[in-house]
Amino acid sequence: MSDYRLVAKDYKEAPTVISVGDELIGSDELCIIAGPCAVESESQIYEIAKQISEAGIKFLRGGAYKPRTSPYAFQGLKLDGLKLLKEVSKEFGLKVVTEVLDTSLLEEVYPYADVLQVGSRNMKNYQFLKELGKVDKPVLLKRGMSATIDEWLLAAEYIMLGGNENIILCERGIRTFDDSVRNTFDVTAIPLVKELSHLPIIADPSQGTGKRSLVKPMSLASIAAGADGLMLEVHHHPEEALSDGFQSIYIHQLKELLPQIKKQAALMNRTVNLKHQAPQIV
Amino acid sequence: MSDYRLVAKDYKEAPTVISVGDELIGSDELCIIAGPCAVESESQIYEIAKQISEAGIKFLRGGAYKPRTSPYAFQGLKLDGLKLLKEVSKEFGLKVVTEVLDTSLLEEVYPYADVLQVGSRNMKNYQFLKELGKVDKPVLLKRGMSATIDEWLLAAEYIMLGGNENIILCERGIRTFDDSVRNTFDVTAIPLVKELSHLPIIADPSQGTGKRSLVKPMSLASIAAGADGLMLEVHHHPEEALSDGFQSIYIHQLKELLPQIKKQAALMNRTVNLKHQAPQIV
Amino acid sequence: MSDYRLVAKDYKEAPTVISVGDELIGSDELCIIAGPCAVESESQIYEIAKQISEAGIKFLRGGAYKPRTSPYAFQGLKLDGLKLLKEVSKEFGLKVVTEVLDTSLLEEVYPYADVLQVGSRNMKNYQFLKELGKVDKPVLLKRGMSATIDEWLLAAEYIMLGGNENIILCERGIRTFDDSVRNTFDVTAIPLVKELSHLPIIADPSQGTGKRSLVKPMSLASIAAGADGLMLEVHHHPEEALSDGFQSIYIHQLKELLPQIKKQAALMNRTVNLKHQAPQIV
Amino acid sequence: MSDYRLVAKDYKEAPTVISVGDELIGSDELCIIAGPCAVESESQIYEIAKQISEAGIKFLRGGAYKPRTSPYAFQGLKLDGLKLLKEVSKEFGLKVVTEVLDTSLLEEVYPYADVLQVGSRNMKNYQFLKELGKVDKPVLLKRGMSATIDEWLLAAEYIMLGGNENIILCERGIRTFDDSVRNTFDVTAIPLVKELSHLPIIADPSQGTGKRSLVKPMSLASIAAGADGLMLEVHHHPEEALSDGFQSIYIHQLKELLPQIKKQAALMNRTVNLKHQAPQIV
Repeated sequence: MSDYRLVAKDYKEAPTVISVGDELIGSDELCIIAGPCAVESESQIYEIAKQISEAGIKFLRGGAYKPRTSPYAFQGLKLDGLKLLKEVSKEFGLKVVTEVLDTSLLEEVYPYADVLQVGSRNMKNYQFLKELGKVDKPVLLKRGMSATIDEWLLAAEYIMLGGNENIILCERGIRTFDDSVRNTFDVTAIPLVKELSHLPIIADPSQGTGKRSLVKPMSLASIAAGADGLMLEVHHHPEEALSDGFQSIYIHQLKELLPQIKKQAALMNRTVNLKHQAPQIV
Repeated sequence: MSDYRLVAKDYKEAPTVISVGDELIGSDELCIIAGPCAVESESQIYEIAKQISEAGIKFLRGGAYKPRTSPYAFQGLKLDGLKLLKEVSKEFGLKVVTEVLDTSLLEEVYPYADVLQVGSRNMKNYQFLKELGKVDKPVLLKRGMSATIDEWLLAAEYIMLGGNENIILCERGIRTFDDSVRNTFDVTAIPLVKELSHLPIIADPSQGTGKRSLVKPMSLASIAAGADGLMLEVHHHPEEALSDGFQSIYIHQLKELLPQIKKQAALMNRTVNLKHQAPQIV
Repeated sequence: MSDYRLVAKDYKEAPTVISVGDELIGSDELCIIAGPCAVESESQIYEIAKQISEAGIKFLRGGAYKPRTSPYAFQGLKLDGLKLLKEVSKEFGLKVVTEVLDTSLLEEVYPYADVLQVGSRNMKNYQFLKELGKVDKPVLLKRGMSATIDEWLLAAEYIMLGGNENIILCERGIRTFDDSVRNTFDVTAIPLVKELSHLPIIADPSQGTGKRSLVKPMSLASIAAGADGLMLEVHHHPEEALSDGFQSIYIHQLKELLPQIKKQAALMNRTVNLKHQAPQIV
Repeated sequence: MSDYRLVAKDYKEAPTVISVGDELIGSDELCIIAGPCAVESESQIYEIAKQISEAGIKFLRGGAYKPRTSPYAFQGLKLDGLKLLKEVSKEFGLKVVTEVLDTSLLEEVYPYADVLQVGSRNMKNYQFLKELGKVDKPVLLKRGMSATIDEWLLAAEYIMLGGNENIILCERGIRTFDDSVRNTFDVTAIPLVKELSHLPIIADPSQGTGKRSLVKPMSLASIAAGADGLMLEVHHHPEEALSDGFQSIYIHQLKELLPQIKKQAALMNRTVNLKHQAPQIV
């Protein structure tokens, strides 16, 4: 019925495990990607990177180019933001996950990113997906806000057909009639994708719910549903963030959440890929 | 901003715990409601009630009056179904949760039910909700398939304003563009309702996902998100069920799931309200 | 594929024309139903009935029982409202279209209504639809706000299977992600229903758009799409209306709109069923 | 409240009229853009261009680069398709409207197009919109399938802020729960956009409904609602089309539709911009 082939479980039974340098995504170890919505300044990204690194995080997220609904909203620090990401990632030994907006920016972003993120708004930019198929770095493919599971897997198929098998899917909420929260976070997509595809899938409960207080329960729910990891928006001063502060958790909340994530992972017979299994916080 | 008052956390901070005879819903003990979509025959409901009872279940679900999209589909055994529910519930010591379609059937269903279920299609039948406010039995209020959280809580407000404070909310999936599964199961509604209201909320992953294989992961996810219990469609021969067989789990699957539910509950510092903590199945 | 039979064009090729006393709905003459959202007082309904009657309107709408999202909102004048509707309809020779909330109110509303309206929230109250199948008055069946065309026609099938063939469908907008206006008015449903069914279909651009300024263009668009009539919310003082004033047009706007409706109808080779073809306003 | 400025009616009261060579879009004359979904072969585009030209059409649509959900579906003839469009447009004196998929293809498509089309899937590709702001050709901006009116106008704002004021909006249906037809064609968006913005807006009932038989009624409804023109998928052999044949009308249907469009336009005090006011077909 559906037209995807290479990404299907029929094509390859074993789960795909993706190498990001010496780190793995899709293995029994859950990956936790954390950081601010956007890189805002040197001090901001330095402080956040330092603190999440101390908490054990190995993957740093942060947007340098931001797709914003309004042209008058903060658009990101662009190349300067990319350079800052590179600097702090070196300083603290972090892998960088950052968004590429389209084909025209791929060359610029490439050297600064360990994982190239495709945002929700670009999931159906097929010309761009074809280009990503030729790239030798992993792609984190967010679900389009109005994409069916089938369309999402076909978007991954575009990339894989081009030759790049290193695709991480990321559920981030869909657009529905319900305006109680920012998006309707489709947790069910996680076990459903696991049935249909061999690709790893992680969850973004920050974007998925759009509300700080919901990040903790929905992180645990995502892991209970089978997610291979989480992407979390974290900020040292969310109330001053230039974008999406209301859905970013405080760093102390991240520190409190990690031990709970470990316990939830243990229930699923999995571990969490953190820098140090800091015994004092368990 | 919103217009609900009595159901709000502002009105009453402590969680509402509801008594169903000598059983509680909304306490630290999770309630598990299980049974077929519809009562189909004496042997069917007897067999299912017997087996789920042996598995430890204390609450039996089963529709006697079924709201069906097509008038040509099986409409339920009606009064005969209610009588069968009563019989087997006595035989096996189960509490009966069954749907009342509207005001005109309230008197008929009342003596046979321990919990009166309001289905998704009737959540906005305000005349009916007013009547339920006068009833001295607990109401299980399913979320309308296109109801916002605000509308859902206002529906509960109708009942509570009438004088009936014994309301259990039940998330069962909403209607969205995504046709990958039957409904989009809004797990986030669980912690969100917990923030806004003192009423207990349970989850129906059978209806919520519409797919047997997804019931297990989404049961665990619901509890991880903070649900006070689960409603599960269970059938001894789901492939022969007269309605919704594809989303009903087998009895052996229920038996396998219960120990996992217990572990997930334990992680949330909760227990599960089962007849016997049957050590052999843990 | 679909399960409706009696309402299908396959079952009966010729369009169904419904008699409301000596008036017809579904013929080449478009019907225009106008009036306030709710009956609010004797003077209000008298004034509106008088003025719309002078404008040529033959069908008066007005809710006596109002389904409201909040229990604290105005719920309608109930029996008093019904009596007022009857009075003014006699005085001005108008047919009354008014909502019945559910089975329990059917007996009460029956004597006061010429057309029994089923609201959007009750389209899937199948117990109620079965009761309406036994009634000898026409039913105006509004589309559920999250009902597919198939579900809508199956709701009509419930009524027709009970023996009542006098069903008028009414498109009133569906619930989608788009919050630009109150509902997404599905004009395409009109020609689609015309392809599938022999039942007449009218359009409610007041509820469909939720915005006064959009009522005129969407009235014309509905007729251009093939609608058999319109339901329009009209108020003499919309800014003081107890419900939905923002989507009610002023009486002078109705008077300006009618000649345009006539011209649009003429383009479709149809006329408009008005009391007098008042030459001065054309 | 909203953040758009340059596209707002507040900024510029008079409707924007756009020149495409010596043709205007947004004036009192409606523009009709017709042609196949995709350019498929020399003979196909030649035949269609010839016949629609004879019918009076001045704007030819046709995709050379096609955004397809599946990578295994026909992706368009690409540069060869663009060349064919140019050839037939010269031969028959037609303006070419064709889609540009993203920034990387802008330079290639530019010389072959009179109007650059942005597809629904790319409406939120802000990097691309910024590039289009620097271009000296008109842009036809289709509404994103899950875009609110506000987001759509902000997308236009991106282009206008870059310096390109020649933007034509095109309603093409949104994604909702309703699967009765391909999309939910939001006709109400037309008068709503007219209230909010000075930009011209046309309607695409082919994509909007996804069903050939609905193109005629929804074309008339769109004009009745105030559209400044139509985009119609037309094919000489729709049953053999490589994409979207089921929603393409036959050429003889276009010829029958044009006189009705003229009459509908006349009712709105508008005319239709056609090559010759071919008296024999009126």
